[in-house]
Amino acid sequence: MSRSIPTFEDVEQAHRRISDKVHRTPVLTSASINESSGAELYFKCENFQKTGSFKFRGAANALLQLSGEELSKGVGTHSSGNHAAALALAAKLLDTEAYIVMPNNASPVKKQAVEHYQARITWCEPGLDNREEAFRRIGQATGAHFIHPSGDFNVICGQGTAAKELLEDVPDLDALIAPVGGGGLTSGTAIAARGMKKDIRIYAAEPRMADDAYRSFKQGFLIPVDRPNTIADGLLTSLSPLTFRIISTYHDDIFTTTEENIVQAMRLIWERMKILAEPSAAVALAAILSNRFVFKSKKVGVILSGGNVDLEKLPFAPSS
Amino acid sequence: MSRSIPTFEDVEQAHRRISDKVHRTPVLTSASINESSGAELYFKCENFQKTGSFKFRGAANALLQLSGEELSKGVGTHSSGNHAAALALAAKLLDTEAYIVMPNNASPVKKQAVEHYQARITWCEPGLDNREEAFRRIGQATGAHFIHPSGDFNVICGQGTAAKELLEDVPDLDALIAPVGGGGLTSGTAIAARGMKKDIRIYAAEPRMADDAYRSFKQGFLIPVDRPNTIADGLLTSLSPLTFRIISTYHDDIFTTTEENIVQAMRLIWERMKILAEPSAAVALAAILSNRFVFKSKKVGVILSGGNVDLEKLPFAPSS
Repeated sequence: MSRSIPTFEDVEQAHRRISDKVHRTPVLTSASINESSGAELYFKCENFQKTGSFKFRGAANALLQLSGEELSKGVGTHSSGNHAAALALAAKLLDTEAYIVMPNNASPVKKQAVEHYQARITWCEPGLDNREEAFRRIGQATGAHFIHPSGDFNVICGQGTAAKELLEDVPDLDALIAPVGGGGLTSGTAIAARGMKKDIRIYAAEPRMADDAYRSFKQGFLIPVDRPNTIADGLLTSLSPLTFRIISTYHDDIFTTTEENIVQAMRLIWERMKILAEPSAAVALAAILSNRFVFKSKKVGVILSGGNVDLEKLPFAPSS
Repeated sequence: MSRSIPTFEDVEQAHRRISDKVHRTPVLTSASINESSGAELYFKCENFQKTGSFKFRGAANALLQLSGEELSKGVGTHSSGNHAAALALAAKLLDTEAYIVMPNNASPVKKQAVEHYQARITWCEPGLDNREEAFRRIGQATGAHFIHPSGDFNVICGQGTAAKELLEDVPDLDALIAPVGGGGLTSGTAIAARGMKKDIRIYAAEPRMADDAYRSFKQGFLIPVDRPNTIADGLLTSLSPLTFRIISTYHDDIFTTTEENIVQAMRLIWERMKILAEPSAAVALAAILSNRFVFKSKKVGVILSGGNVDLEKLPFAPSS
């Protein structure tokens, strides 16, 4: 657990390892959103990544470093979201079993995604304790290797490859911003970006209703999230010790956003860019739009983290 | 009205004329939709075009051929949809006035788009007669030049530039398919495609609930649409004499699709490709999925015509 912080070389190695397995996603811009924001925004579209989110990068990188013997016993995690689907596909491609513990209140859409990749799902009562206990039993019975969604060294290195590609495509960015939940994405983003460009500003964006990263960053010690309640369902989790250390070391600031701003930003992305972004992915744009003075006239890279939404339960209310 | 059919050279000229005004939209593929369809599909993403649809190509090409004197009197059309927004933006960029007659039952979203580009809107009662009468009065008062949404020679040449770009990017297509309403898009597509590749198959796709092009094509004479009623709101109009002649000359077949299939295809595009496609744009994929034997193992170009939808009124019902 006291493993050191990944270096840029670790991200580079991860990129070599996974680059023929992941999509090199496009970087999109929108004249209309630039006009609205007063900044020049470059969206790294991980909603187009395999399984619909950046999570596949980290899962692939973690699994590719397991030995044949480790792989033969299967891998697993507890997750109700994108990490579960990503791990399931990575396991399928490496021809091993994925054991996924899901809370029995997970949405049908997430369940379908995990089933689609032929993972073995074990249902449990909601709550972190129940999930960990359920996975512990599976681990004992199978020897399956547990892959943490965000606190894993190799997962973090994999997530950093998105920012690396973005800076390869747009080298003269002034700043980079990514949403923060468990912190794997923004940690990898920070390591990659600072490794490639010393003076780049690194920001994270978080829902105010799940603001443990913001509080931890400001207070200087790790504060777990307390009863999170946000539409950004990918950002409900707490930082891990490792991601907290990375964020404390590299980040210039963390911004929080309201639920209303998240939905507005999400709608802006859908209407102006004609692409699906999930609420968690819209949090970064929401932060930019509520902190215009910080980003004014700057070239800003935005990690658009994913596009997995339930089309039957969209948050767009009549605006008139 | 008896003007000849455009040639491939006309489309080439249109492309030179508008290429610095329009987006060269990307061609996207989806491994998952290819698996579902049994074909290899290449989506030309005109949902990413300026104003959210291919219509901007035709509007730009038509306006760029007006003289300074003609332009000074303004341009106009009657339309409740994408052609209105496209003409409004093209007029704005050429610094002239756009007069748009809209039926007073047009959706707020379409109204906002036209207003956004600062066009002058005149409201009228629904119905083609009312729209034509309202525009006639405006034309008499202003001298504004009327641009037909689909039956205009220059509009057709502009719309053909999407297929030209698609075939430049993917030269070895076996077939091309586009949705058909007034027929401007599929006419331009056919002229461009046959000009670049003699043996390519040209198809159009139409909602069964607005199947005038299908009936006209099969019967060999122009049959106007009778009480169309489809979710594909861009395809409610009838062919014009010019587009009927082009379609009769170039098309291999026209397929019709049910409303249910249109919504299913639209959902497939949203969920698997993470992009917004409007119902009219999904009609081509719907036709492919209901005629698998025609497209099996073929490389097929699909013109994804637009992405303008009302996010508050989506047709995705619970599937469970």
